[in-house]
Amino acid sequence: MKEKIKAIVFGCGVMGRQVARVLLDKESFEVVGAIDIDPELIGWDLGDILGIRKKLNLKIEKEPEVLFSKVKADAVVHTTTSYLEIVLPQITQCLKARLNVISTCEELSYPWKRHPEIAKNIDKLAKEKGVTVVGTGINPGFLMDTLPLMLTAPCLDVKSVKVTRMMNSAKRRIPFQEKVGTGLTQKEFRQKIEDKSITGHVGLLESIYTIANGLGWELDGAIELPPEPVTGEKEIETGLGAVKPGNVIGLTSVAYGQLKGKEVIRLEFCANAGVDEEYDEVIIEGEPNIHQKIIGGVHGDIGTVAVTINTIPRIIEAPPGLLLMKDLSLPSLAL
Amino acid sequence: MKEKIKAIVFGCGVMGRQVARVLLDKESFEVVGAIDIDPELIGWDLGDILGIRKKLNLKIEKEPEVLFSKVKADAVVHTTTSYLEIVLPQITQCLKARLNVISTCEELSYPWKRHPEIAKNIDKLAKEKGVTVVGTGINPGFLMDTLPLMLTAPCLDVKSVKVTRMMNSAKRRIPFQEKVGTGLTQKEFRQKIEDKSITGHVGLLESIYTIANGLGWELDGAIELPPEPVTGEKEIETGLGAVKPGNVIGLTSVAYGQLKGKEVIRLEFCANAGVDEEYDEVIIEGEPNIHQKIIGGVHGDIGTVAVTINTIPRIIEAPPGLLLMKDLSLPSLAL
Repeated sequence: MKEKIKAIVFGCGVMGRQVARVLLDKESFEVVGAIDIDPELIGWDLGDILGIRKKLNLKIEKEPEVLFSKVKADAVVHTTTSYLEIVLPQITQCLKARLNVISTCEELSYPWKRHPEIAKNIDKLAKEKGVTVVGTGINPGFLMDTLPLMLTAPCLDVKSVKVTRMMNSAKRRIPFQEKVGTGLTQKEFRQKIEDKSITGHVGLLESIYTIANGLGWELDGAIELPPEPVTGEKEIETGLGAVKPGNVIGLTSVAYGQLKGKEVIRLEFCANAGVDEEYDEVIIEGEPNIHQKIIGGVHGDIGTVAVTINTIPRIIEAPPGLLLMKDLSLPSLAL
Repeated sequence: MKEKIKAIVFGCGVMGRQVARVLLDKESFEVVGAIDIDPELIGWDLGDILGIRKKLNLKIEKEPEVLFSKVKADAVVHTTTSYLEIVLPQITQCLKARLNVISTCEELSYPWKRHPEIAKNIDKLAKEKGVTVVGTGINPGFLMDTLPLMLTAPCLDVKSVKVTRMMNSAKRRIPFQEKVGTGLTQKEFRQKIEDKSITGHVGLLESIYTIANGLGWELDGAIELPPEPVTGEKEIETGLGAVKPGNVIGLTSVAYGQLKGKEVIRLEFCANAGVDEEYDEVIIEGEPNIHQKIIGGVHGDIGTVAVTINTIPRIIEAPPGLLLMKDLSLPSLAL
């Protein structure tokens, strides 16, 4: 039998716990440690917070260094926040301990544009220590970048790439429904956009940069528009109660990239409670045109956990450095 | 500017010529030689047979060794036949000259089951010489194996994979329409199946083995059924003339793989002149289910040329040996 891959769970929030549960279920993985900064969690056994009714003999540690000095691991699954500046010291600690890192930090999926200095430093440190760092998830990481890129493989030429995620937010977690502004008046929504308590989807620009990089396109630039509220024409049931006509049932986030003055990449992230048909769509204008659709879409939370875990074997075998998903060998289900 | 990738075209048939034309068009490639055994072609300038109305100063050579001793190249694009036993000496010559090989030989896309000895020998020689060999194309190579595998990345678990190619053969090349039995009576069709002058699609088993290998499934076995004729209910126009009701307008090839007595992989290749809606479809039963469709399908000839050319940069950077598409970093459009 092949040796199990030893993983440390860095971050024990909603994502981290789902990751831990799945890793425990899979035959090729072993969870060897857990980290969180929440005082409510520190010191508890990981099993106690997973709802699995058994102890794992893995105490949730506050200090990464303390854990790293005690256990050997092949990879850290890092799920703390979306923003690179906040996760930098966490990633750095992992790298110093010579641990491969796979992170759901959206900005880490393509950090070279928005945070070139940080990216350079992470890359340098990872190479020094002989380990690999990759940021991934369902989006960014798969649906709006890696998959569309892969779909250009049967093309002789590509003129533009358009990706649309169309999802019914009423089917998702309550925090997600709050995040897309469900139930707000339009005025409240615009206020929250202004004070940045609603940010829309994080990662659209990273996905654009990833596609452009993969296609060898030196974009003039990439722009993310402020999220637009979506309102219902009739009363609509949501996880936050019924929303009156005219009030917000979700949002649309759009970003695009231009090459020589023309829009060549367009990403639309649509999440509202009025969506009848969920899907993930890629339209490539090229030779030949490619029109691809995932009917019913891919569930975001499950997808992020799956893509992250399924990529672990790939980062272990990859050359050292800060890599992109497209640099790894093909991700697919890991047992 | 980056140095161009120097490619030799091994095989100057329909595929090889299309490959050569596209390589000549692309900025990152250079064609440095051409090989064919057809006495009608040997000695001519490659430009003369491409219909591009200019000389390329590349004489079509009969003997690979002669060409290899004269020119330096990064990769050979090999497009001669579907069968591994026939291409083995050709591949061997390339490897001995320390040339990376990308081939459209269907059986090379996963040779480990049907030709384990040949596979082992190619792998050994490639490693000795420090070069990479990959068999690819649209199918096998992409639509029925690499892409479905990639689509399991957002899954926590996979129970089965079903892939369907649905294409209207009347829109394809005449030789293809002949290959699928267009215009035959059902009796003639069955006779041609028996004497193997109609073989159906080559590569279904290779695609099944590739998927199973990627998912870590040790199949009980994989079975390819004899192609079944498809007949029209009314008269149907084809590239070979109108076909009467009851006569053959194309075929369906089915193959499946079983795991612990259950069918877990099913591939259906449907090509007939009566198809209204062309598509390429992947249905993954798992957690979550994934239902993906390429609406309109992907054109087989263009797709094969594109996947093959777009994979060249990947084989050059890959570790040596006989690899599978899934072992390479993500294929995408090469400039």
